[in-house]
Amino acid sequence: MADPNTRLPLNRQSVLDAHKLIKPHIHFTPVLTNSTIDEIASTPQSLEALKGTEWEGKEPARPKIRLWFKCENLQRVGAFKVRGAFHALKRLEEAEGGVDAGHEEGGWRQKGVVTHSSGNHAQALALAARELGIPAHIVMPTISTPSKIAATKGYGAQVRFSGSTSVEREAMVEEVIKETGAKLVPPYDHPDIIAGQGTMGLELQEQVQKFQFERGTSGGTPEDKGNGGLNAIITPCGGGGMLSGVALSCEDTGIRVFGAEPGFQGADDGKRGFHQGKRIESVKSLTIADGLRTPVGKLPWDIIYERRLVQDMFSVTEEQIRKAMRLVFERMKVVVEPSACVGLATVLFDEGFRGVVEREGGERGWDVGVVFSGGNVGVEALGKLFDVRDGEGERDGGLLGRDGERVAENVAG
Amino acid sequence: MADPNTRLPLNRQSVLDAHKLIKPHIHFTPVLTNSTIDEIASTPQSLEALKGTEWEGKEPARPKIRLWFKCENLQRVGAFKVRGAFHALKRLEEAEGGVDAGHEEGGWRQKGVVTHSSGNHAQALALAARELGIPAHIVMPTISTPSKIAATKGYGAQVRFSGSTSVEREAMVEEVIKETGAKLVPPYDHPDIIAGQGTMGLELQEQVQKFQFERGTSGGTPEDKGNGGLNAIITPCGGGGMLSGVALSCEDTGIRVFGAEPGFQGADDGKRGFHQGKRIESVKSLTIADGLRTPVGKLPWDIIYERRLVQDMFSVTEEQIRKAMRLVFERMKVVVEPSACVGLATVLFDEGFRGVVEREGGERGWDVGVVFSGGNVGVEALGKLFDVRDGEGERDGGLLGRDGERVAENVAG
Repeated sequence: MADPNTRLPLNRQSVLDAHKLIKPHIHFTPVLTNSTIDEIASTPQSLEALKGTEWEGKEPARPKIRLWFKCENLQRVGAFKVRGAFHALKRLEEAEGGVDAGHEEGGWRQKGVVTHSSGNHAQALALAARELGIPAHIVMPTISTPSKIAATKGYGAQVRFSGSTSVEREAMVEEVIKETGAKLVPPYDHPDIIAGQGTMGLELQEQVQKFQFERGTSGGTPEDKGNGGLNAIITPCGGGGMLSGVALSCEDTGIRVFGAEPGFQGADDGKRGFHQGKRIESVKSLTIADGLRTPVGKLPWDIIYERRLVQDMFSVTEEQIRKAMRLVFERMKVVVEPSACVGLATVLFDEGFRGVVEREGGERGWDVGVVFSGGNVGVEALGKLFDVRDGEGERDGGLLGRDGERVAENVAG
Repeated sequence: MADPNTRLPLNRQSVLDAHKLIKPHIHFTPVLTNSTIDEIASTPQSLEALKGTEWEGKEPARPKIRLWFKCENLQRVGAFKVRGAFHALKRLEEAEGGVDAGHEEGGWRQKGVVTHSSGNHAQALALAARELGIPAHIVMPTISTPSKIAATKGYGAQVRFSGSTSVEREAMVEEVIKETGAKLVPPYDHPDIIAGQGTMGLELQEQVQKFQFERGTSGGTPEDKGNGGLNAIITPCGGGGMLSGVALSCEDTGIRVFGAEPGFQGADDGKRGFHQGKRIESVKSLTIADGLRTPVGKLPWDIIYERRLVQDMFSVTEEQIRKAMRLVFERMKVVVEPSACVGLATVLFDEGFRGVVEREGGERGWDVGVVFSGGNVGVEALGKLFDVRDGEGERDGGLLGRDGERVAENVAG
């Protein structure tokens, strides 16, 4: 991880460079397609479904949509976060004189790295640090679930406990730094993290292009687009590291980039900030999309909004997230966490997004890349999300019935 | 589907021929590997874990195991059953004079096909029949879950209801045949079904070979084996169509084939019959592996036992099935139904199987193909399987802790 000021401005080349550095350490995750979900996405919503929304009484959009799912739920540690973590550490290694430097008593390598996280970033940094032979200190709130603490320890990290407010967590990080001299690796607000996360965008572009070439189908005129046949990519947005990184990977390709958030209890800070022209700095939401409870960071915001590399932001309800998640489980047969489903939920339910695809995609329609950001959800947690006895998870007959109950038809791309 | 008597004896060539016929209609499903699960499988069980089993007090086996998961849960309709269904219909088409014959009023194509099933075979036959332009009549028990009835109707099949005993179901099938002249397509006890299901074995052999060649690794000496690097394949066994078909696909390749069943309430009829030398003709079990509640059919038995194409049969407990299923969900991030997990459960928990691998595989170990037969489990059913409030689904800390809580590392093969 290099000093933030040494590598600005970030651009597509930064992401290409990052990919070279981290490729040996990450999985080149598969891209899946699903004709059933394409059909559902390409079927207008019913007037009934729009009741009680801002689109009530309006004519439902008629977009044509082909979806390409980038499966970062199949990434190492079950989430995209390893991309940024490996990149930050490889860059740090470079900045400190290479693989052979820093091994001496008191060298940087012995001092290690530190972060605070109770989620996927904790495990990602722990894995990356172990693989590169660097000690990792992870500050986790005392109330973290035992399985997450065990998993982080399982990667060989030193876990330090703190209170659960951000003030308490940051105080503990300071303490660790004072004690050990470890370097802080933040979860999203750093150029090396952003460039690392963006590498998934490069892979997705390449995979779609290769697949379309082999099948002799193309999502448009490649000469016009030069972008691998994709018209757009939509990713979840929490701190914004992934969204801004993917936006960089699409710079000058003609691919539109969109962000998706949960709307519950104001977790759509990115969308609200985007439309009011000013970053929102604090969020307190307990959305089921627990990876997206953080406000967008400063550096991601600069890329997303100031540099206009993201076209628009959308938000979805908790119920829409659950519906999308059920569809992915029952039709695609892959495990995704709630945070990973906000992009698909936007495609299926947001008339704003669907209207854009109808207008801009026309008869031909759009090829849309959707990022499944992670798959870390336990079977118990999953059971609770869809527990009929809590009355939260009634059969979503309306949605699944839209195309006559067809079942999974996956193609690995 | 041809007359059963026209194509005996079944052999590897029958399966190769079947593959040619059905290839355009089925997915070439991916093969996944997972280093975490390999590590767990290659770690001896604790003495504690063997308490109360027939291996109590014995030294746990020390096998070295590399697993290759054939993902038929990602197959069309979410299960391998489409292979046999398409093959049966394509063979029927051939036997009746080809694609152009039988379209006339009163022709076979208008009379259609019929089966009784409340599971994956119903949807598989419905899909195959629709795609080939043949009416399908599916007899389902009145008590079938509404989602399964809706799914079968969704493929355009005529659903007819009956009582839930086999006598009542068969009476209704007879009635449909009398009324319509439809031809019966049984779920497993037919040569065309068996040869169709066996095609997954060919694909698995090819995929492992290709992957090992590309990586420059090989699971042994290909000259000796000529089998694509696999030492063994293990599949679930209900009626035995899949197991016997896969056994045919391995004939003369040197690959050992094993069958796995649930032991609950005597559902291990195949294993018991195998060891007592006589097919068991009736089973009444409510195992959670609901696709495996049927006794092995006559024709599959002939291949499995009389022709000795299956090396051995094993059984696992309900709790072992649940543990394997949790591992697949939480570490591999793919959705599998309980029936699909009996092969992996055998590899992880059966000391008999593990002892064979230790003795025959030695230092080098074995490459074992494991078939994930289907992924049709709803989120509610899943929640119930692991419901902590029912006291059935306590955290399986012992198993997951075996290798220090490492998380998913999938590679698509």
